[in-house]
Amino acid sequence: MRAVLLLSGGLDSYTAGAIAKSQGFTLFALTIGYGQRHARELESARDVARALGVERHLELAIDLRAIGGSSLTSGDAVPHDRDIGEAGIPSTYVPARNTIFLSLALGWAEVVGAYDIVAGMNALDYSGYPDCRSEFIAAFERVADLGTRAGVEGARFRVHTPLIALGKADIIRRGLELGVDYGLTHSCYDPSPAGRPCGTCDSCALRAKGFREAGVPDPLVLR
Amino acid sequence: MRAVLLLSGGLDSYTAGAIAKSQGFTLFALTIGYGQRHARELESARDVARALGVERHLELAIDLRAIGGSSLTSGDAVPHDRDIGEAGIPSTYVPARNTIFLSLALGWAEVVGAYDIVAGMNALDYSGYPDCRSEFIAAFERVADLGTRAGVEGARFRVHTPLIALGKADIIRRGLELGVDYGLTHSCYDPSPAGRPCGTCDSCALRAKGFREAGVPDPLVLR
Repeated sequence: MRAVLLLSGGLDSYTAGAIAKSQGFTLFALTIGYGQRHARELESARDVARALGVERHLELAIDLRAIGGSSLTSGDAVPHDRDIGEAGIPSTYVPARNTIFLSLALGWAEVVGAYDIVAGMNALDYSGYPDCRSEFIAAFERVADLGTRAGVEGARFRVHTPLIALGKADIIRRGLELGVDYGLTHSCYDPSPAGRPCGTCDSCALRAKGFREAGVPDPLVLR
Repeated sequence: MRAVLLLSGGLDSYTAGAIAKSQGFTLFALTIGYGQRHARELESARDVARALGVERHLELAIDLRAIGGSSLTSGDAVPHDRDIGEAGIPSTYVPARNTIFLSLALGWAEVVGAYDIVAGMNALDYSGYPDCRSEFIAAFERVADLGTRAGVEGARFRVHTPLIALGKADIIRRGLELGVDYGLTHSCYDPSPAGRPCGTCDSCALRAKGFREAGVPDPLVLR
């Protein structure tokens, strides 16, 4: 059974892919270069795709900087040393990003004959993004069924988000059980020119908290 | 009130934009170059955006040829002299195209503070595309409300498809009432290198039928 995996190069999508692979899916990995400031993650995505043994890895480019509205796609500073628990949606929110990414995954899924899409969204320990919630995912599945030839012909699309109810520590534990090499991943929103994580953005903070709570060292920090 | 208009350069999206403008919307036109073989329509989109007096015209590029699955984005021949009434979804269907386009429109809408998206889909005299049906549009509105910061903050997005229940002839009549200049548009899927319509693809056939039934000459044919 084929599945399209939305693969960012971060630890969530790698873990989601490893879970899907353990369930028997043949993976078609889709990575989207959207003009993100942490384009370093695209390199990690290639390493992760190789480690997952995907059937194919497609990289698509769409420059969301032209749309703007996010500190991840602009020259604006991303927040550092923020209290992750604080209310509200941070400036790193990219308008409609997951809707756009799922749509592209859907198009490719239809072409390769996959009715399953795998994505690493998680709703616990997340950054307050609306498009990481399960009600959003369910609504997208309906769009997929109604808006495709495959859906009209009777296929039912499913968006698998195996991490949606897991905290970062549980994600990491699950990944390690499955042999995931987190040293290949990149999480930081604001890396140095050489690609080193800043250690203080939301994404670094959530990652550090996850490894700490899982009681294992982060291989990226050890290096 | 601001609205994002999905503007292809064809006659439907121009007419939909003219209707939205007549209702008082300030238009932000979004045109997507997706590697379509009829890239000629992108030039028409610029002319139409000017004629509509849009506030801004954004062109985004995303190469859907990498995804494939359509004769509109591949070297495969598009159908000519087909019976438009025949059952089934033709090879010119682009997997998930309208989902992708609406997602991009949604992202930009959020950034410019628009909660209205205008698109030219029509379900009568259409080519059998699943993503032109009103149930698909309604499902997408739900995705928009659930997957955006604006939606979480209480906005309700609306996708306006003022042509959805109109045949081509009615669309043309309505457009002419509103002063639309159909000589600026491009409909053909398979134009000559110089950009001349072929006259026999589905899109040309629907256009010709529309002008014939409206009882008016097509300014593109007169030229």
